[in-house]
Amino acid sequence: MTSSNVNAPVVAFLGLGLISGSLAGALRASGWGGDRIAWGPRLPSLEHGKRLGIVDHICLDLDEVLLRSDLVVIGAPPVATAELLPEVLTKALQYGEPVVTDMASVKGFIVEAATRHYPKFVPGHPIAGSENSGVEAARSDLFRGREVILTPTADTDPEAVTLVEDLWSAAGARMTHMSVAEHDAALAASSHVPHMISYALTAMLGDHALAPMKHGGGALRDMTRIAASDPVMWRDIALTNREAVLAAMDALSAEHDALRGLIADRDAEGLEQYFKQCRVLRREHDAVLNPALNDAEAPS
Amino acid sequence: MTSSNVNAPVVAFLGLGLISGSLAGALRASGWGGDRIAWGPRLPSLEHGKRLGIVDHICLDLDEVLLRSDLVVIGAPPVATAELLPEVLTKALQYGEPVVTDMASVKGFIVEAATRHYPKFVPGHPIAGSENSGVEAARSDLFRGREVILTPTADTDPEAVTLVEDLWSAAGARMTHMSVAEHDAALAASSHVPHMISYALTAMLGDHALAPMKHGGGALRDMTRIAASDPVMWRDIALTNREAVLAAMDALSAEHDALRGLIADRDAEGLEQYFKQCRVLRREHDAVLNPALNDAEAPS
Repeated sequence: MTSSNVNAPVVAFLGLGLISGSLAGALRASGWGGDRIAWGPRLPSLEHGKRLGIVDHICLDLDEVLLRSDLVVIGAPPVATAELLPEVLTKALQYGEPVVTDMASVKGFIVEAATRHYPKFVPGHPIAGSENSGVEAARSDLFRGREVILTPTADTDPEAVTLVEDLWSAAGARMTHMSVAEHDAALAASSHVPHMISYALTAMLGDHALAPMKHGGGALRDMTRIAASDPVMWRDIALTNREAVLAAMDALSAEHDALRGLIADRDAEGLEQYFKQCRVLRREHDAVLNPALNDAEAPS
Repeated sequence: MTSSNVNAPVVAFLGLGLISGSLAGALRASGWGGDRIAWGPRLPSLEHGKRLGIVDHICLDLDEVLLRSDLVVIGAPPVATAELLPEVLTKALQYGEPVVTDMASVKGFIVEAATRHYPKFVPGHPIAGSENSGVEAARSDLFRGREVILTPTADTDPEAVTLVEDLWSAAGARMTHMSVAEHDAALAASSHVPHMISYALTAMLGDHALAPMKHGGGALRDMTRIAASDPVMWRDIALTNREAVLAAMDALSAEHDALRGLIADRDAEGLEQYFKQCRVLRREHDAVLNPALNDAEAPS
């Protein structure tokens, strides 16, 4: 058992699932001194987190949680985060103004939901996840080498940003700052649309007369893995980042049509060039996409 | 060193790359008694295979290779396989009629190229691969638990089929028989189009003003891994299975458009249902898509 340090920030997790549970576990593994408190709508998840030792306390009284915390982490899908945020900010102003951060995969929708001016709110998004969900899937190494994007504005309290950065550094992540609009456009392309096309591919295979999915190999394993992701979270992401997702889906459709044209035209040279450029581009991003691989390959 | 068994089938590999090298290595690991001979256009690959011990001999004289072999495995991309096949079958008729098989990812194009009637030709396709290529990427466990599809016809010699099945069984694979047309349609959907959409996604990200690929996580890692695949092989597959690939690309586009419609219409319930069905479908195929996982999780 780590003993509680009265000077170290007490962290509250509002909702305990895959992402927040992994962060709580990572804090514990890092020797983070402050207590970790869990609050949330699903008591079994909280109790599971307590049994696993990734949180120290469960508290079902949100006022008390805010009063006792230095840093409040909202761990919920986008819609639930946006629903909870106004109440959390109101209570936070009332009870000692803890730093508040969230982990939702869209930022514009969340920032719009934060109707109250609260300079200690630091919107965040860890680029890590899993097709599994729930605290039972939590892994304390989930964020190691992964990027966490923060979207503070000129109004955001710099000390609040520093505390949120300390939190994620303890989990082994690296930090990037972006504007809300850039975050939502970039993530629509790098994460949201890859999920949509994985879903569409899976649905296409499910409808196919030959049931081709049963002949899948490693390629199909990887291309459909994220189609087993949390349906509620991805419904929320698709709808709350709707414009950017639709724009990126259209960009992908246009690219897919162009590639289809090369095949229809039997353009052997064009196809080989296309595939070669993709290979180069993908290999240039090996290190950022495979941080765990870097760990394994690094000289000890 | 395994000692050569005069009664065990001698296997020749025409071309030594990732797939054929992995099969040669798997045979060696299985204790396959017959010699393994390598022939091919790239001497360094053959020499590398010899140094690795996955083949016993190198021979650059194709007539001699066919004369000495009981089973000839053509390990080449579709176009090279189709170019080599008529010569191989002609020589095979001349030199003791060894069984001949191939490993190309398309079968209609290959069967059409086999202009000569040769009942001991057994078209095959192992559903395994890697984004890496070349004999240096060979892994003797590449086929463990994976499917190998054979497409014999009523004309094919049953004993030839049995020998090819023995070969793949030694590598730990499981066998399925299909018609050529079913193979090409099913694989267009389960493998070829997943590669095309991975390429299109990678190209879209490469063209994007915000360079979103650098913000990718595990989802993007998996969705773009196969975009680093061998450009020549995938050019060949796209063109030699052109009709089936175009049909499956159109089916995927239609599915992608339908999903786009749900998002554009803000159909929350429709999206959640769509994603839930995909999750169920993907989980039903976990075992076939993750044979290695099954190994790891099986009670010892």
